[in-house]
Amino acid sequence: MAVNWGILGTGNIAHLVAEDLRRLPNAELTAVGSRAQARADTFGDTFDVPHRHGSYEALVADPALDVVHVATPHSAHLEHATLALEAGHAVLCEKPLALNAAQAERLIDTARRHDQFLMEAMWTRFLPVMDDVHRLVHEERVLGDVHLLRADIGVTQPVDPTHRLFDPALGGGALLDLGVYPVAFAFDLFGAPDTVTSSAVLADTGVDAQCAAVFRYDDGTQAMWHASLGADAGRTCVLAGPEGRLRGTRAWWKGAPFELTRSDGATASWARPYEGNGYQFEAAHVMACLREGRTESPVMPLNESHALLRTMDALRAEWGVAYPQEA
Amino acid sequence: MAVNWGILGTGNIAHLVAEDLRRLPNAELTAVGSRAQARADTFGDTFDVPHRHGSYEALVADPALDVVHVATPHSAHLEHATLALEAGHAVLCEKPLALNAAQAERLIDTARRHDQFLMEAMWTRFLPVMDDVHRLVHEERVLGDVHLLRADIGVTQPVDPTHRLFDPALGGGALLDLGVYPVAFAFDLFGAPDTVTSSAVLADTGVDAQCAAVFRYDDGTQAMWHASLGADAGRTCVLAGPEGRLRGTRAWWKGAPFELTRSDGATASWARPYEGNGYQFEAAHVMACLREGRTESPVMPLNESHALLRTMDALRAEWGVAYPQEA
Repeated sequence: MAVNWGILGTGNIAHLVAEDLRRLPNAELTAVGSRAQARADTFGDTFDVPHRHGSYEALVADPALDVVHVATPHSAHLEHATLALEAGHAVLCEKPLALNAAQAERLIDTARRHDQFLMEAMWTRFLPVMDDVHRLVHEERVLGDVHLLRADIGVTQPVDPTHRLFDPALGGGALLDLGVYPVAFAFDLFGAPDTVTSSAVLADTGVDAQCAAVFRYDDGTQAMWHASLGADAGRTCVLAGPEGRLRGTRAWWKGAPFELTRSDGATASWARPYEGNGYQFEAAHVMACLREGRTESPVMPLNESHALLRTMDALRAEWGVAYPQEA
Repeated sequence: MAVNWGILGTGNIAHLVAEDLRRLPNAELTAVGSRAQARADTFGDTFDVPHRHGSYEALVADPALDVVHVATPHSAHLEHATLALEAGHAVLCEKPLALNAAQAERLIDTARRHDQFLMEAMWTRFLPVMDDVHRLVHEERVLGDVHLLRADIGVTQPVDPTHRLFDPALGGGALLDLGVYPVAFAFDLFGAPDTVTSSAVLADTGVDAQCAAVFRYDDGTQAMWHASLGADAGRTCVLAGPEGRLRGTRAWWKGAPFELTRSDGATASWARPYEGNGYQFEAAHVMACLREGRTESPVMPLNESHALLRTMDALRAEWGVAYPQEA
């Protein structure tokens, strides 16, 4: 039986998700909602979506829907996910789950009160290659005790105060848009850090143009990462321990190879390429959760989304980065 | 006219330097000194050194010498470099110049009082590839304004409390032995940082088994680096800016390729391979300085060696890593 999806928002992510939903035999992209009917219609034409709504209220009122993908900027996640949950839908909400931990708490409360499924759309966690990484690192322990995770993510976005990424009102900045990935990567592998040290460079608009942090775990692991709106340092990741290292080559999350080098010099390399944009794996997981009657994902649980935001709140507080909604 | 070198110490570094001195037509390895005559003799036989001294005092009293390479552990640099300077020799002293900034100050004072040449043996700075990096980054500005330097260095040294690297009395720890390289790399490219944040994991002996830091410069550059005694994360470096990135592949300092990727996708790659261990370049520089009558290197000046140690002192203070000599 097909699951009926609605997409709230018609931006870049909405396009990528709409493409990927087509790859899932049991997913039906039934409805799209935009603030402007014309944008909903254009999107509907592009992706062959039968129901096109000219407001988010109309979208969530659509009785055909099973789950709503909230694809608006971070600053609007609380409002839009609340709207969908209160209308009785399951919600897959773009990352980060909300602008800050306080907003996430409200959202999680709403989901629980309405007994509805809610998940942060941390799509990279559901990539097939992540199963390999977990198995190699935690089960086969090919690296021994992991000493280090290093990850970087960057784009070369020309500085433009009017662009979403530089706009505090839209929750701009490198951390919430890009840093959330390495932060969630570290949480996925090692949990919440015991100590965090960090550094940021702010743009004129007050958001973090780039940031770097070291997470330290009491068992001796360190996770260091960097996120930048102005430079692309290679988009690689490395896990290292006394027995070897595991390296995700450039764009590993797009199916580029992972390389394992053991301390005795032996090497191995493999890739998990896929068709599409990579959002189909999280969507399939959401549908599996719904089939099983879950209100929460065991892979991307709500407490973890909340903890991610607590960590990101603490980082922003250190840097003096606050959004107008938080004043 | 040949420059007569003496090596103080017969450990691993002394061997590597002795091999490389042979590659320089104007360098003569004239003398070696050890605490034990037998070790001096063995070293002398291996490297065909005519004068073998059974004490450091006897070595520095050798009138044939022009310059002494101090190749003992960090904890002994002050004592041994002072000995050589006071005996009237130029000194090339292994990195770091001393155990801490206070010791470095005393050493620098001694060198200036005796009007003798003194330089920290930061050999990587003299590699031919570093000329390319400086030219590309600072003159040709192929990356635009550099946003990020990332470097990592690590070894997989089994934990052994009796090993030099884990011994506080010998100035052990990842920072002084390995971290000094990325710290000096950042100083070479950008100078002393305006802000430093860091994190370390301590071994049972109290030294830093691994450490990570982010240097922040007020112009918006960040330098993040990691040093580990227990894991090798790849030994690469990356410089990134809006116009592209420059990546030193594994063991770039041994002549492995540097790769330039411009933001338009164009790539270039080059290497500066060399014979030997790489210490011949700093030795040639020392001889050029001596020929020119300099008491200080313009490439690795004493104020910078001092500043490096001030930064490393501050890092160790944050981590609570102190050596017994500092009590």
